[in-house]
Amino acid sequence: MQLNHYDTPCLWVDLDIMESNIQHLAGYFKSRGLEWRPHTKGIKIPEIAKLVINTGAFGVTCAKLSEAELMTAAGVKNILIANQVVGEQKIERLCQLSRINEIIVAVDHLETIQLMNRIAEKFAVTLNVLLEVNTGMNRAGLDPGQPVLDFYQAIRDLEFIRNRGLMAWEGHTATIADPDEKVRSISASMEKLSATVSLCRENGIPIEIISGGGSGTYTISSNFKLLTEIQAGGVIFTDVAYSKWGAETRPSLFLRSLVTSRPSPKRIITDTGWKTLPGWSVTPKPLGVDAVDSISFSSEHGVIHLTRENTSLQPGDPLDYMVGYGDNTVFLHERLYGVRNGEVETIWEVKGRGKYT
Amino acid sequence: MQLNHYDTPCLWVDLDIMESNIQHLAGYFKSRGLEWRPHTKGIKIPEIAKLVINTGAFGVTCAKLSEAELMTAAGVKNILIANQVVGEQKIERLCQLSRINEIIVAVDHLETIQLMNRIAEKFAVTLNVLLEVNTGMNRAGLDPGQPVLDFYQAIRDLEFIRNRGLMAWEGHTATIADPDEKVRSISASMEKLSATVSLCRENGIPIEIISGGGSGTYTISSNFKLLTEIQAGGVIFTDVAYSKWGAETRPSLFLRSLVTSRPSPKRIITDTGWKTLPGWSVTPKPLGVDAVDSISFSSEHGVIHLTRENTSLQPGDPLDYMVGYGDNTVFLHERLYGVRNGEVETIWEVKGRGKYT
Repeated sequence: MQLNHYDTPCLWVDLDIMESNIQHLAGYFKSRGLEWRPHTKGIKIPEIAKLVINTGAFGVTCAKLSEAELMTAAGVKNILIANQVVGEQKIERLCQLSRINEIIVAVDHLETIQLMNRIAEKFAVTLNVLLEVNTGMNRAGLDPGQPVLDFYQAIRDLEFIRNRGLMAWEGHTATIADPDEKVRSISASMEKLSATVSLCRENGIPIEIISGGGSGTYTISSNFKLLTEIQAGGVIFTDVAYSKWGAETRPSLFLRSLVTSRPSPKRIITDTGWKTLPGWSVTPKPLGVDAVDSISFSSEHGVIHLTRENTSLQPGDPLDYMVGYGDNTVFLHERLYGVRNGEVETIWEVKGRGKYT
Repeated sequence: MQLNHYDTPCLWVDLDIMESNIQHLAGYFKSRGLEWRPHTKGIKIPEIAKLVINTGAFGVTCAKLSEAELMTAAGVKNILIANQVVGEQKIERLCQLSRINEIIVAVDHLETIQLMNRIAEKFAVTLNVLLEVNTGMNRAGLDPGQPVLDFYQAIRDLEFIRNRGLMAWEGHTATIADPDEKVRSISASMEKLSATVSLCRENGIPIEIISGGGSGTYTISSNFKLLTEIQAGGVIFTDVAYSKWGAETRPSLFLRSLVTSRPSPKRIITDTGWKTLPGWSVTPKPLGVDAVDSISFSSEHGVIHLTRENTSLQPGDPLDYMVGYGDNTVFLHERLYGVRNGEVETIWEVKGRGKYT
């Protein structure tokens, strides 16, 4: 069936390009001796996570416990929750999940991990943890160096906690435009992390896993002989954002809209606003439309302003956009249409939609 | 059950405040001789739409056909789709829906309405339309004055189309901060609309409905003796945005998060990023936190920066935010918790989530 048969707005992926992106990335990380644990917060579809694993990833990264539950239920093994899981209710869910899958979770707070240990004892499970280290992003995480060593020494005797290593996300560097500055900034983060690893190892703390790297940094971060695994995930789709932020893969994620109004020869209105195609932070790119001046979105309208008159597109005509940023787009949709040679080959349910707890 | 029993992030509404907002608005519009047709794009819950109708609204406004289908299935009557419905597939759905409910749809393009007429004939229904007029927002809509009259005259003989009147949304004025300038700008829009109405009536075109006004303009737009109905809907919740944009109702919509990390005495991390609590355009307001310097969001993390040290909030503690902008928040959630006197009285499914076609 042709894509035009389906109702718009309609999110679709070019299967040939996505598969070739996945193969490229699997080879890329393998050739550097790195494990690949793609983040699924922007992918949201267990079937695609499994496809990536079949091609070379050894597990996935999730942002939230509910996403890890979804992936577990779909048969995905080896999940890192790259976030703190707090509160009794969530820690109980984490223990429950850890009975049936290998789950690793980021920690950065002593009382939380002590609570985790008590609840894990009740559930008779061992919880795997990575210490999150703040290497310059200034979000969560322990300060590098001595605070990390102190933390490890404080949790050493927790019987139901298993220390696996460190996690650090150099997210503050992803959007740096100047290539030299980007390398310098990532190097500074890696130095902090490296010094922390050395300090821990010198003090007899085993550091098995060092997890980091995202779709906006992997081409640089994977060159340091430090990380053991890379979390880049959204880059299997690629979009305007990752193209700009240095990804070497090709754009495969698009949104088909219909033109709904042509109020002026220099203005095109489509049926997709920020509820289906956010223009926040990175603007989507309409395909096959010349002389685009600017694009704006309201909740359910997309407005394309042209620099010169064009009346060829009329209400009812399809218009594709290259997605601006997959992470803020895929999770809004109910379905993702997999297209090959113009035909819809697969319709995936976006099962990760609404998995935010 | 207390709200803290439920897992976070957790969107909740103060029922006493929401109900009092609804009563206030019903009285407000009635006293001005206006019908109230609240927009449900930011409400998304049919049960709340019905509550509003029971209190004084006579129907609802929807942004999309799928939202109108949802509301129809829930028993809501009299629906205006304040948007163009284009393409054979959607027009067929519109005809189907028009067999079982009174649906009015905005139009602004001759070929589309001719197609609507042909399909309506096949379905043996009459489609109700309002002509959308561009009164300064420069999105969709016909230019005011003669183009509207020309359009009416061109559709006069379409047997399966019933002209009900005009729609215009003065959305470009909603965010104007200066009160005098806002009144001037809305007046300019209303003058264009008023002149169009007069021109049509002088030429024998019946204008039964004149629909407009939103949550950011209703306190001004409803004072002109022009509109017959007001679309303001989100204002039943109110949020940081509508409080700023002149709404007279009280904030009732909140999001409960948990603190997940305290990496520094001047930084609080919560479990809610822009996937559940967008800070786009309008920043949410954390409650009970003093000395807030700024707030930033990544996809799943909220970061509150403080101007002075505070260590009282610890990981696992609940923290409520006043929602920044309900329209970009409610539609992201699976459930809305209705709270009265600290107890969860109702849990509504956000059935309008994903209704974007």
